[in-house]
Amino acid sequence: MIQKRKNPTPPKPPANKRRRRKPGGRKNYQHNKPAEQTKPAGPTKPAVPQIPTFPGAPKLKIMVMGGLEEVGRNMTVLEYEDDIIIIDMGLQFPEENMPGIDYIIPDITSLIPKSKNIRGVIITHGHYDHIGAISHLCPKLGNPPIYTAPLTAELVKRRHEEYKIAPLNIHKINPDTEKLQLGKFNVEFFRVTHSIPDSFGVVANTPVGSVVHTGDFKIDFNPVNDKPIDLTRIAQIGARGVLALLSDSTDAPHSGYQLSETEITGDLEKIFLQSEGRIIVGTFASMINRMQQLIELAEKYDRKVLVEGRSMNTNLEIAQNLGIIKTKKGTIIEEKEFKRLPDNKLMVMGTGAQGEENAVLMRIANADHKFLKIKEGDSVVFSSSVIPGNERTIQSLKDTIYRGGGKVFHYQNMDIHAGGHAKAEDLRLIIKLLNPKYFVPIEGNHFMLRIHGEIAEHLGMPKENIFIASNGQIMEFMKGKNQNETSGRLTTEKVPTEYVMVDGLGVGDVSSIVLRDRRMMADDGMFVVIVTVKRKTGELVGSPDIISRGFVHMKESKQLINDSRDLVRKTVGKAKNKNFDPMFLKNKLRDHVGELLWKKTKRRPMVLPVVIEV
Amino acid sequence: MIQKRKNPTPPKPPANKRRRRKPGGRKNYQHNKPAEQTKPAGPTKPAVPQIPTFPGAPKLKIMVMGGLEEVGRNMTVLEYEDDIIIIDMGLQFPEENMPGIDYIIPDITSLIPKSKNIRGVIITHGHYDHIGAISHLCPKLGNPPIYTAPLTAELVKRRHEEYKIAPLNIHKINPDTEKLQLGKFNVEFFRVTHSIPDSFGVVANTPVGSVVHTGDFKIDFNPVNDKPIDLTRIAQIGARGVLALLSDSTDAPHSGYQLSETEITGDLEKIFLQSEGRIIVGTFASMINRMQQLIELAEKYDRKVLVEGRSMNTNLEIAQNLGIIKTKKGTIIEEKEFKRLPDNKLMVMGTGAQGEENAVLMRIANADHKFLKIKEGDSVVFSSSVIPGNERTIQSLKDTIYRGGGKVFHYQNMDIHAGGHAKAEDLRLIIKLLNPKYFVPIEGNHFMLRIHGEIAEHLGMPKENIFIASNGQIMEFMKGKNQNETSGRLTTEKVPTEYVMVDGLGVGDVSSIVLRDRRMMADDGMFVVIVTVKRKTGELVGSPDIISRGFVHMKESKQLINDSRDLVRKTVGKAKNKNFDPMFLKNKLRDHVGELLWKKTKRRPMVLPVVIEV
Repeated sequence: MIQKRKNPTPPKPPANKRRRRKPGGRKNYQHNKPAEQTKPAGPTKPAVPQIPTFPGAPKLKIMVMGGLEEVGRNMTVLEYEDDIIIIDMGLQFPEENMPGIDYIIPDITSLIPKSKNIRGVIITHGHYDHIGAISHLCPKLGNPPIYTAPLTAELVKRRHEEYKIAPLNIHKINPDTEKLQLGKFNVEFFRVTHSIPDSFGVVANTPVGSVVHTGDFKIDFNPVNDKPIDLTRIAQIGARGVLALLSDSTDAPHSGYQLSETEITGDLEKIFLQSEGRIIVGTFASMINRMQQLIELAEKYDRKVLVEGRSMNTNLEIAQNLGIIKTKKGTIIEEKEFKRLPDNKLMVMGTGAQGEENAVLMRIANADHKFLKIKEGDSVVFSSSVIPGNERTIQSLKDTIYRGGGKVFHYQNMDIHAGGHAKAEDLRLIIKLLNPKYFVPIEGNHFMLRIHGEIAEHLGMPKENIFIASNGQIMEFMKGKNQNETSGRLTTEKVPTEYVMVDGLGVGDVSSIVLRDRRMMADDGMFVVIVTVKRKTGELVGSPDIISRGFVHMKESKQLINDSRDLVRKTVGKAKNKNFDPMFLKNKLRDHVGELLWKKTKRRPMVLPVVIEV
Repeated sequence: MIQKRKNPTPPKPPANKRRRRKPGGRKNYQHNKPAEQTKPAGPTKPAVPQIPTFPGAPKLKIMVMGGLEEVGRNMTVLEYEDDIIIIDMGLQFPEENMPGIDYIIPDITSLIPKSKNIRGVIITHGHYDHIGAISHLCPKLGNPPIYTAPLTAELVKRRHEEYKIAPLNIHKINPDTEKLQLGKFNVEFFRVTHSIPDSFGVVANTPVGSVVHTGDFKIDFNPVNDKPIDLTRIAQIGARGVLALLSDSTDAPHSGYQLSETEITGDLEKIFLQSEGRIIVGTFASMINRMQQLIELAEKYDRKVLVEGRSMNTNLEIAQNLGIIKTKKGTIIEEKEFKRLPDNKLMVMGTGAQGEENAVLMRIANADHKFLKIKEGDSVVFSSSVIPGNERTIQSLKDTIYRGGGKVFHYQNMDIHAGGHAKAEDLRLIIKLLNPKYFVPIEGNHFMLRIHGEIAEHLGMPKENIFIASNGQIMEFMKGKNQNETSGRLTTEKVPTEYVMVDGLGVGDVSSIVLRDRRMMADDGMFVVIVTVKRKTGELVGSPDIISRGFVHMKESKQLINDSRDLVRKTVGKAKNKNFDPMFLKNKLRDHVGELLWKKTKRRPMVLPVVIEV
């Protein structure tokens, strides 16, 4: 019997996770209060009582630890009795209200006590939102074996070298032919197309049924420098029966079909045809296929290629070694030859199409590069779509390039028209071919999952079989009394999935309080009041000191500082007492000075009173 | 004789203004170092020697004070002998690297000594980037007469009420019929279409020739609730001869024609046809025509309208009083009736389609509104395109709405498809009709001006007659020896156009140093080290105090704090001396502690040493 339960809609995350989001306009630092990082503390207690089911029947549990409430920090855990496999371990770039944070990684609190059960970590492809947390998390999980395709393996290794810790336990696999037995999970792979080669999807065959995880994918029958997505294979997997499909939702809100990467070649070629000066292309170092495309165009139009930027050179080297990027002898040149050749024989390929700080394009535009700067006649190509949040930075970069004499070619829609992710119609096809019993949209903001869920519903899937989950929310699948029937449910339990923030060498040491203080000081600065008083009596010694930063220009605000100092003196005078309490004085100073500053400036700097007793 | 000069390309701003832009990815606070605000200090000295011309010939000078390097703080100054007119006085929203700043207004240093020459301030329409600086600047310029259309006049007055200072000197004009003689400027107007009614362009007839300023405009033959742009009038103005055209460049990078506002009605109507629950629309309070459109649809589909948000209610009231918005009796309802009616008879109109903090849509989504929150069946319409920089905030707002049970309709392209600004083909038409001798693209980032300039060049305008200027760069126009000929030039002189930042009550009191400190504390927090020492000897008294905020979670970093305290003790010990110098100790403390913290954390909090001598 199939256990039919109405999926409680709207699927709200449990209260402890329901971060109250107050997105804002400008002064929006005070929003999105991230929860304090939780310390690993053994298995977590279920937040709500379990809904009764078939007691004793072994369950397959799926927990998507990250990527259900954001684009990034993708990580999925499959657990069956004492066996665990993990798919992807990615990072998320920080949100606007997290100043100073480098990135966010998944919370593995619930996994640490079960480390010995982890049979393998499967990495679908080499983008940071799928590999970026490996070096932080694998060492804490007993260094489990990592299984991935050759290019991804090399990218993971290179990134790991930066950490100067014990090497990872990486196994290269051939996704076309290989199968793995990881505990009770029999795992197969299927090639998909994406904006990086060697991307695959995962089929985890379990005693309860087959779970398919697509990874990031698009349907491209004419990819550049890559094999097409293996739809036949996907159809065969579907024909065998799929219990649950976890599928990429990143581009679900966009209707229609994704275009082939081949479509871009035409656009790029136009630039080569019309440019009489140098061609300078900014792109992501991970866009290996775009690199090959550009190199081929350069060869066709008799230009030599200077590759700038450490990450781009590293990735080029890796891809060349694996035979993924092919270049003719002499195409790639160094500084010396670059300087000798005429402009119309040159192409520069570097990082920076997102306006990233210190990226090659930025350094060239700002004339900070050691030998390159923009000059009259340069054609500068932004070869990637704009990541939300970078728009103003890119506008300003374009201004700088135009000021330098360059011309900008920005196919803003280049990666929308031929991006790396399947659009609505593609997603329909994949759902149809795999024909799963349960459907779990993954990899996207909540609204993207919802739209992807609607696509499945329109295809006739029962609404209660579509699980729009929150990060860490536990899904369970088990055999019914009739062994041919399997039922699944989205429970209301969840494992912890707090933000774990990486800042410099610190992992998880920036708490919500630290961030709140950063935002407060960013908005209105701080104001330190230091008074020296006699121990016990609290009588003022000398003059109060005031130090302020980020609040007002001090030299021009003498009156305000004097007024504050007078108020401090008065406050100390009132607080002096036989039973002098420095804590009481501190609070009074904070309140009184804060009030004065607000009245005079309508700003709220952080007021820090310091009472020194001598 | 036409004085032909090759316009020095690329048009670089003079060195003192050439802000080095280093747009960045995440930690990008350290870029765009805004120059320190300049104090009003009489007329500025030319940065470079003037290029010789016809000495003694009276010149028309045009200085665009803001809007040539950004979208925002639009302000143009025309000066002929002792007469000055100003067109628009807008604000600019702060850039990413200006935490805590409310907005930026134009720098009027060069105008203050000439206040008595200002014959009038003409305001083309009621958007903040054209009116937002009036209340700050007009009082400092001797309260010159302001001339504008009725709706704009009312919007300016309402905004001014917040400042509780002397009233402005506003004169309402009828742009269709009225002419003004402002000193030697004979000024006429022509109606344009834009996303707010009562928008017009300006023709300033001067002894040297006619200057046309388009304001913001689009070409809309079927506007909603507004008269179409007066192309016949524009053609007639062109036929009389135009010396210089200053034209809106905001949408120049987009090819093709702008669509009519009427096109949107169809999209909106679909939502009314299919929604069975409430319809909640978030838009800008200034989108008066969109409001009318929504009200008409509500009336057609038998829904009542609740208008939420102070600015939206204010604007509705103003527009109703002027007869610009027309509603049937009973369409607009209050809370009490709203609560009585069934969901399918309701529409809510509020602010917040940009995810602005405290806007109505945000409060409803977060259940912070006094009686509204999202529920199952709600259709939430984002009725404006996304302003660059707000993308992530809006994604997060959509998540919240979906979690609450609502469905989001976001015509992301709504305002791209039918936005308020002319696209490339429209701009060609305007240039052709006005047929100016000189062309000055305005209102946009530098690259937008360049693209607009190329449009004019492709139409056959000589490149040297197209002035791509920087903010404040002086353009001069004068009669030649033959009185029928007039020549113009873009000089290399400029008037000051520094950022004047408004933060709370402060105007211009946030300097580049204050901003740098805010960014530094936002990234890595601060670390105050307080030592009490004996006067003269520098011997340590008691234990050093350490106060840190926004750096690390202090409770979990005891070791680091102890290490720092030990280092402080050691540093004080070394500095104690017969000729103890507290400044020397401070510097040592800053260096040593900063170094330790960087080594241990790879973060650079602001280290503030305080030495108290007792």
